[in-house]
Amino acid sequence: MTANVVEQTAAPAGTQNQDVLRELYADWARIMETTPGLTMRLFRSIFDEWHQPTVEPEGVTYREDTVGGVPGIWCLPQGADSTKVLLYTHGGGFAVGSASSHRKLAAHVAKALGSVSFVLDYRRAPEFTHPAQVDDGVAAFDALVASGIAPENITTIGDSAGGNLAIAIALAVKEQGKEAPGQVIAFSPWLDMENKGETLVTNNDTDALITPELLEGMIAGVLGGTIDPRTPLANPLYADFSGFPRLYITAGSVESLLDNATRLEDRVRTAGVDVTLSIGEGQQHVYPFLAGRSALVAQEFEKLAAWYTK
Amino acid sequence: MTANVVEQTAAPAGTQNQDVLRELYADWARIMETTPGLTMRLFRSIFDEWHQPTVEPEGVTYREDTVGGVPGIWCLPQGADSTKVLLYTHGGGFAVGSASSHRKLAAHVAKALGSVSFVLDYRRAPEFTHPAQVDDGVAAFDALVASGIAPENITTIGDSAGGNLAIAIALAVKEQGKEAPGQVIAFSPWLDMENKGETLVTNNDTDALITPELLEGMIAGVLGGTIDPRTPLANPLYADFSGFPRLYITAGSVESLLDNATRLEDRVRTAGVDVTLSIGEGQQHVYPFLAGRSALVAQEFEKLAAWYTK
Repeated sequence: MTANVVEQTAAPAGTQNQDVLRELYADWARIMETTPGLTMRLFRSIFDEWHQPTVEPEGVTYREDTVGGVPGIWCLPQGADSTKVLLYTHGGGFAVGSASSHRKLAAHVAKALGSVSFVLDYRRAPEFTHPAQVDDGVAAFDALVASGIAPENITTIGDSAGGNLAIAIALAVKEQGKEAPGQVIAFSPWLDMENKGETLVTNNDTDALITPELLEGMIAGVLGGTIDPRTPLANPLYADFSGFPRLYITAGSVESLLDNATRLEDRVRTAGVDVTLSIGEGQQHVYPFLAGRSALVAQEFEKLAAWYTK
Repeated sequence: MTANVVEQTAAPAGTQNQDVLRELYADWARIMETTPGLTMRLFRSIFDEWHQPTVEPEGVTYREDTVGGVPGIWCLPQGADSTKVLLYTHGGGFAVGSASSHRKLAAHVAKALGSVSFVLDYRRAPEFTHPAQVDDGVAAFDALVASGIAPENITTIGDSAGGNLAIAIALAVKEQGKEAPGQVIAFSPWLDMENKGETLVTNNDTDALITPELLEGMIAGVLGGTIDPRTPLANPLYADFSGFPRLYITAGSVESLLDNATRLEDRVRTAGVDVTLSIGEGQQHVYPFLAGRSALVAQEFEKLAAWYTK
């Protein structure tokens, strides 16, 4: 057992099941449909289970901290280069999800990229509307730079609404005349605050979680019913991407938000920016949550690492 | 920041607030009171938040595994002696809680004791009634021994219903004529399946979570309405403790289950066993969940470490 504790690397029994993410989403969808008056409190409770499909990454330690006044969790892979920081903004429609729900995912990515990551517990909607989430990200970014991390060694990264934030934080930093992060990574970014897009319809039957109604509620929460859904820092599909950092996007082919990724890729490429879009065949929303369990995600992270170190 | 990432040890802002555990319990109690038809599914979701009062321990890595066919999470403090294993059974009335909800707590204890811990995801009630939970613990214990860990270097440990299991596993191993674990640790053990005890009444106003009704439901789940509530492996207050390993018990002075701890201590001492009972003044159920945040818990863990290494 002593040897096992340290050296066994085979995945535990059952961890190869790639349906785990789809099943969790289907379960949440069922709860949302069948629980009368599901409160935001319980909504947050179930979304904090988002970590469940992700296998604990080995060889990573953690540390709680606040960076620029924003609390969060450092993911510190053993032997990682701590001068390279992934500033991770979690998904959850700006309203749910947490540093805790995304700790394992952010740790897997940091490990794959040989860097450290800091997962932000930014202020959530509806208690805090746009741009509180972007402001928190910029505050953390500025604090990292002030502490001596080179901007080009900072990557803003996130998934779903957090993918939106990873982009918006980079846009805001640039707008404020400061040196932008070196690169931006977005897993299944959710950008379209007008709630349009073809794949909302065409992938409606295959996406296990996302519905236009769910998104409508999230939009109302973060925009507070008053902010223009075409505001570029809230909806980067309307942003000016000239001079934007190099960008890596992933999405699942069967997810309803797929064409958020494809429209983003098109807009960013048109602005002359170096952009990569990688689509996971048959995959659900934010399929990197299957890290440690899915050969496809391992492959994707290798591709991402090659892009990152280029 | 580079230096900070590795060396900062000050607790993050807000982490000194010791009311966090009581507030979480009060919030759960409110949800249980106000949610009509709260399902076991949602009950499990909120109890998986049990990790929230615990600060991420630094310098610990994790690994998912199965031991004796039982899945769980290894907590591996850097520099710990991996020949010394804490077999950790989580609390949650045998029905809720998980390796995930107790990962940080089990890691803090392992770190304090210079050992590693394995947190079991044993089969839960009501899907599996007694003695499934004890059987899983014994299977894991046997597998550790078979892999070369000396029984005296194994500690069965748990909190609440998991404290019951830590004791029952040691009793079952002994009953089966095998060498028992070297020591047993129980945080706020819940033992009394007859749902008696003075502090259920006298501490009713100060305990933020536990009510006789909540316990009644949990008892029905684990005993399935057919098993005698005086069965020693289900209710160790009826067990024969002669020859039992040395035992360390903690409890909070204001919790409803306090006299489960005091009655256990009395019974075990009467059997001639080396037993220590440490009561945390003003503390709630399983107050070690405040690890990383509470000076009292740090003190308690120092005391526990001195006992452990004696």
